[in-house]
Amino acid sequence: MKIVISNDDSIIATGLKELAKIASKYADVILVAPDRPRSAQSHAVTLTEPLRLFKVNGDIFKDIGVATYQCSGTPADCVKIAIQELLHGEKPDFVLSGINHGSNAATNVIYSGTMAAAVEGALAGVPSIGFSVTDHSYQVDFSKGNGLEFVEKILVTAIENKEKIIAENNNRPFCWNVNFPNVPDIKGIKAVGQSNNEVWRDFIVKREDFFGVPYYWIAGDLLDKDSTENTDLNALAQNYATIVPVLINWTAYEQLPLLTKIFE
Amino acid sequence: MKIVISNDDSIIATGLKELAKIASKYADVILVAPDRPRSAQSHAVTLTEPLRLFKVNGDIFKDIGVATYQCSGTPADCVKIAIQELLHGEKPDFVLSGINHGSNAATNVIYSGTMAAAVEGALAGVPSIGFSVTDHSYQVDFSKGNGLEFVEKILVTAIENKEKIIAENNNRPFCWNVNFPNVPDIKGIKAVGQSNNEVWRDFIVKREDFFGVPYYWIAGDLLDKDSTENTDLNALAQNYATIVPVLINWTAYEQLPLLTKIFE
Repeated sequence: MKIVISNDDSIIATGLKELAKIASKYADVILVAPDRPRSAQSHAVTLTEPLRLFKVNGDIFKDIGVATYQCSGTPADCVKIAIQELLHGEKPDFVLSGINHGSNAATNVIYSGTMAAAVEGALAGVPSIGFSVTDHSYQVDFSKGNGLEFVEKILVTAIENKEKIIAENNNRPFCWNVNFPNVPDIKGIKAVGQSNNEVWRDFIVKREDFFGVPYYWIAGDLLDKDSTENTDLNALAQNYATIVPVLINWTAYEQLPLLTKIFE
Repeated sequence: MKIVISNDDSIIATGLKELAKIASKYADVILVAPDRPRSAQSHAVTLTEPLRLFKVNGDIFKDIGVATYQCSGTPADCVKIAIQELLHGEKPDFVLSGINHGSNAATNVIYSGTMAAAVEGALAGVPSIGFSVTDHSYQVDFSKGNGLEFVEKILVTAIENKEKIIAENNNRPFCWNVNFPNVPDIKGIKAVGQSNNEVWRDFIVKREDFFGVPYYWIAGDLLDKDSTENTDLNALAQNYATIVPVLINWTAYEQLPLLTKIFE
């Protein structure tokens, strides 16, 4: 088996190494990660300038024996380069992304570079999983929780059930958004829907530079957790690991009849 | 009425000005566009560096009397700044984006900065429409087609039916992906689904710089049009303007029963 791994927190992130360790037990891993943090880059791709790709020769990943590259592009760029350049267009068995430092539950999925790498895998015809721990610190201590056991369990279950899941999905690859809290007692795994609740409330910080010219910084408050049943936010708050299957076709089919009528 | 307009082709694009002209017949327009082309930036937002916002004082938009700003950020950043800073958090009546120079049909929607601006509007609780002409040239001559009539018709219909459409959508704002060809005889408007077909086939151009160090450029071939009935690619090929209603919640609900069973 071959597994492509990327992330958006870049080559320096603990979560990336932990994911590579787990995946390398089951497959040859081709790891291409951004050379610097690229959070909130969503599905941006770099089309108007060149990209650099360098093999990481240091010992960051030496102990897990994984072919490791850093790329100057976005997470989606990394997956394109891994498949088209390093694998010469051959599809890997899975694309994995993460483990992201920070939740990608609810509407975070729309902004997430981690999930874009997974979506890019699915667009290339490869089943894919993005993993995120609901803790933004790069220094998160995974040994304080049992999340890595669940990451491995979800990967193994995906490997074992791959053909069945694809067959039920009209022969299209699946794309999962997995989130888990860093707690010692994750209760289990719940397949749930994306919460519709806001996670962040935007505001803009306006300041002046030393020349008196204003600059703006996008900021936000983290809002309360969702209380709706059977969503990712709710299950995470109850210490479950969550899987949201993600659509690649974003059509709101239930809105088509009214639109057809209105535009007749 | 207040309408926020953005795009991803930047302040220099013809399509932006044409959209502003049409919208300004019906509303006060607040226009915030990127200061340089930001195509394929998807829903990237700028969180780790400051943004600049400048009022455009030249005569680019003088003849249409629209408050025009350029922003150093992405399309999604522009919409956040328009609503949170220029409108002080007050929701406009619509967010419009475009007219993009190039198709956003099929899987293009995932990479599109134009559509990200529209999705950002919907995330902020505002009904939104992204418009795209299926011609990549910034020099597209709209007078050679009747697309602008359809842009206006779609906007007017959205204004007239806004409350009804929102009510049928569980009181959530809608987000439409509108595409049209630049032909003199657009046949009508079709509400359709996003094609699942590939539009682009990726490849990577590898070259060496003057120091012998390789660089990579993401490229792609445009593939054949989709032949499936009732999709955007198919209707566009038949000279219709298309509307795909776009989901903000990306859960693949039909996959939940199998996942729940597998992870029990």
